[in-house]
Amino acid sequence: MRITLERSLDAPSAPVYQQIATQIRREIETERLRFGTRLPPIRDLAQQLGVNRDTVAQAYEQLVEAGVVESTVGRGTFVASPRRGADLAQPMLSPLTERLLAFERTRPRFGSGQDAVSMHTLVPDPALYPADSFRKALNRVLVEGGADLLLYGGPQGSPRLRALLAERLGRAELHADADEIVLCHGASQGIALALRLFSEAGDAVALEDPTYNNALGAVLGLGLRPAPVPMRDAGLDLLALEQTLARPDVKALYTIPTFHNPMGTTTSLAHRRALLEIAERFGKPVIEDGYEMDLRFAGRALPPLAGLDTSGRVVHLFSFSKSLFPGARVGALTARGRCVEALLALKRATDLSDAMPLQAALAEFLVSGDYDRHLQRMRKVLRARCEALLEALEQEMPEGTRWTHPEGGYQVWVTLPAALDTSELLADAVAANVLFAPGSQFHHDGRASRCLRLTFAMADEAALRCGVVRLARVVRRRLKDADGGVAEVHV
Amino acid sequence: MRITLERSLDAPSAPVYQQIATQIRREIETERLRFGTRLPPIRDLAQQLGVNRDTVAQAYEQLVEAGVVESTVGRGTFVASPRRGADLAQPMLSPLTERLLAFERTRPRFGSGQDAVSMHTLVPDPALYPADSFRKALNRVLVEGGADLLLYGGPQGSPRLRALLAERLGRAELHADADEIVLCHGASQGIALALRLFSEAGDAVALEDPTYNNALGAVLGLGLRPAPVPMRDAGLDLLALEQTLARPDVKALYTIPTFHNPMGTTTSLAHRRALLEIAERFGKPVIEDGYEMDLRFAGRALPPLAGLDTSGRVVHLFSFSKSLFPGARVGALTARGRCVEALLALKRATDLSDAMPLQAALAEFLVSGDYDRHLQRMRKVLRARCEALLEALEQEMPEGTRWTHPEGGYQVWVTLPAALDTSELLADAVAANVLFAPGSQFHHDGRASRCLRLTFAMADEAALRCGVVRLARVVRRRLKDADGGVAEVHV
Repeated sequence: MRITLERSLDAPSAPVYQQIATQIRREIETERLRFGTRLPPIRDLAQQLGVNRDTVAQAYEQLVEAGVVESTVGRGTFVASPRRGADLAQPMLSPLTERLLAFERTRPRFGSGQDAVSMHTLVPDPALYPADSFRKALNRVLVEGGADLLLYGGPQGSPRLRALLAERLGRAELHADADEIVLCHGASQGIALALRLFSEAGDAVALEDPTYNNALGAVLGLGLRPAPVPMRDAGLDLLALEQTLARPDVKALYTIPTFHNPMGTTTSLAHRRALLEIAERFGKPVIEDGYEMDLRFAGRALPPLAGLDTSGRVVHLFSFSKSLFPGARVGALTARGRCVEALLALKRATDLSDAMPLQAALAEFLVSGDYDRHLQRMRKVLRARCEALLEALEQEMPEGTRWTHPEGGYQVWVTLPAALDTSELLADAVAANVLFAPGSQFHHDGRASRCLRLTFAMADEAALRCGVVRLARVVRRRLKDADGGVAEVHV
Repeated sequence: MRITLERSLDAPSAPVYQQIATQIRREIETERLRFGTRLPPIRDLAQQLGVNRDTVAQAYEQLVEAGVVESTVGRGTFVASPRRGADLAQPMLSPLTERLLAFERTRPRFGSGQDAVSMHTLVPDPALYPADSFRKALNRVLVEGGADLLLYGGPQGSPRLRALLAERLGRAELHADADEIVLCHGASQGIALALRLFSEAGDAVALEDPTYNNALGAVLGLGLRPAPVPMRDAGLDLLALEQTLARPDVKALYTIPTFHNPMGTTTSLAHRRALLEIAERFGKPVIEDGYEMDLRFAGRALPPLAGLDTSGRVVHLFSFSKSLFPGARVGALTARGRCVEALLALKRATDLSDAMPLQAALAEFLVSGDYDRHLQRMRKVLRARCEALLEALEQEMPEGTRWTHPEGGYQVWVTLPAALDTSELLADAVAANVLFAPGSQFHHDGRASRCLRLTFAMADEAALRCGVVRLARVVRRRLKDADGGVAEVHV
């Protein structure tokens, strides 16, 4: 029996016990290990592989659960009868899917306490959705469009909505024809489609570190390796970006220059120009996530990277999920030349077409002026919430705490004054009825972080103030414990 | 400069000219070929690679178009200045995406003649959609559900719709809990998600030959290799299936046992049992596409593979796209154990969640009895259309033509009496105002076929009769020409 353990610094591998279980299982399913064969004792295999005994024990347990081996105390672990194995065993998942499952398990689970202040989520507050006027728009387009709206829509999506978006993007200094826009099933599908344009399993993709956690999920799900580039307050570290894009295995850059997730920061015009110059120098395409671009409530709008680009190497992603609501599942990719044709081929191979009624209703909603009225209201609400949050942080948080000052969107990135692991802090916070997203969630390697993301998507001003008071209390307690701990060690 | 040409019998490769262009471009973009370097003369490179001169010329033309090389008559072809290259050149697409683009180009384009009889499409006739009662259901759920229906829905989809589907599937002898169902964005997304459970880029997947063309697209888009298993009238050739599933690189079987696409055939209970026994023997999972299961209009229903399976190795796919309309984009995967958890992880990494309003409206539509009433009507319409089509084929087609006799769904598979290439025949048919899908479209390698698929999805009885008269005329003419051609040669 040969077992190879993969331990990569670049890409999150499957947990070691999982790798062991999968490989033993393969041996059994291909009958290289036959019914009745005794597996090596845990102690021996652990020594041979240079891993902990618990790791091997965990792998054996999983195999017992799957019914492919049987374990008898005092006798050892044996390959189960194939009959029994076949009845109970589930088909083997691909190693890539196993890795994705392992990644999913690292997501924090939040209790659903009624009184908890939700500062962990980027889902916009349903109390602010113009649900009724959207319903009416939907009903109207279905009365007019009838059965034809219930056909397949084609991979590019509603021409009317694309024309309206082209006009809106143009006002935001991203000039594109309706033909250069491909609608997609939410921004998350847009990210996956754009990644697939340029990269395939085994390739690497440059990402901000930290970055949007679901982009990490998309990268992993496609079998790509994240090539992390550190974030500074001003945006991507450009020196590090240069080194990363120079790598031939890095096929593209995924970046969020405006209202960065999780940091809430926006890069300057000079930074944007420098980034494009580097991408151009190394011939690398850029995927620009503009998912919150319509939610600016302070400062002056800058052209997106895709608006500054003259070489057709930026694919831009827009979404209605944060500015309106996620339930329409409509995002929009803007691309040039062959990239458009390739996006259409990818979209067709992925799910043929999106739901026309929702795209038609959105177009109607835009034309009626309801979307712009909604944005005006949202910007006011968000500015007030953001101010309340920043003020509360100023008043409550322990000295040395730092945070970002967003000009739009929903999120603030907080750095604690001492090296507390905010994933551990989360348990205390949940107990104290306040929720945040720990920094580790946004790192490709899930490493411990003293940072956390606070959002003002769900919580209103009063809730935000209350949430920060609770959070500050939890942090102070931990800081004190940490001080105490250190003192004890030194005594 | 090193160029490697990939020519695989198993998988459709990118066209040779494309492979040459891509590789030269990579050399230029990584500056192994620098500004001003002269490319080898077309003649020399063609000889060196053992390809046609036209092929190399086509590759060079593409590079000129992309602006990465410049060509001067009499002087040769040179690497363009990087400045100029960067401004004009599009970013490089992944080889996988290039292959997908090449595949897309093999799809026949149908003219849109107003009078043409549409026997080429599987899109159900919008004249039969219960559009108005669906609109009312959608409006009702949005009035009741309000803004909450516009949130993300979670990767598994509406619990209410899943419970209703579990009950319906149970009546069709597929017993599953609502928790074992994962809703997806149409059957096409379902196919891709199910394939990703078990296989990843480089793996092979067993497929019927012929099979659903968009399943071929999904396979290709994921970087999988099709492992074709020939179809007989009774279903998959089981001996060939055995040999294919024995291959360690083949990770799963994708099959359509009921109302096969394109053949319209349904396998027997004995064939289903034998297929499952083989899959079990080799420990391979089965993806069962039951996309038309609700459209049986003759014969007795058989349990689906997933209903006969006792080992949890069948993932079943249901869809509303053919039985109702495609515009809701709702399909449903049924799976067991860890496969469910893995499907949820894949769905999350793909697009987070589907649109809740459409799922809620479908649930409402089912509860009201409207769906069952619609199915009753559809079955009557389809039975009448199918009879009209088969009768017309009997009366009109030249002797020796054979066709299948579907018990449900929309399609009949016709085998012509002589080895005419039906892709070539299609041009004549378009000119004669009748459309069909040529057999080559359903083969993994796009090879010529004397078969064609006729559908009664869009055309009513009168149209079908008229369409068959036109088709028969076109076929007879070609047969005569072929005879004439042969005669001339013999003279």
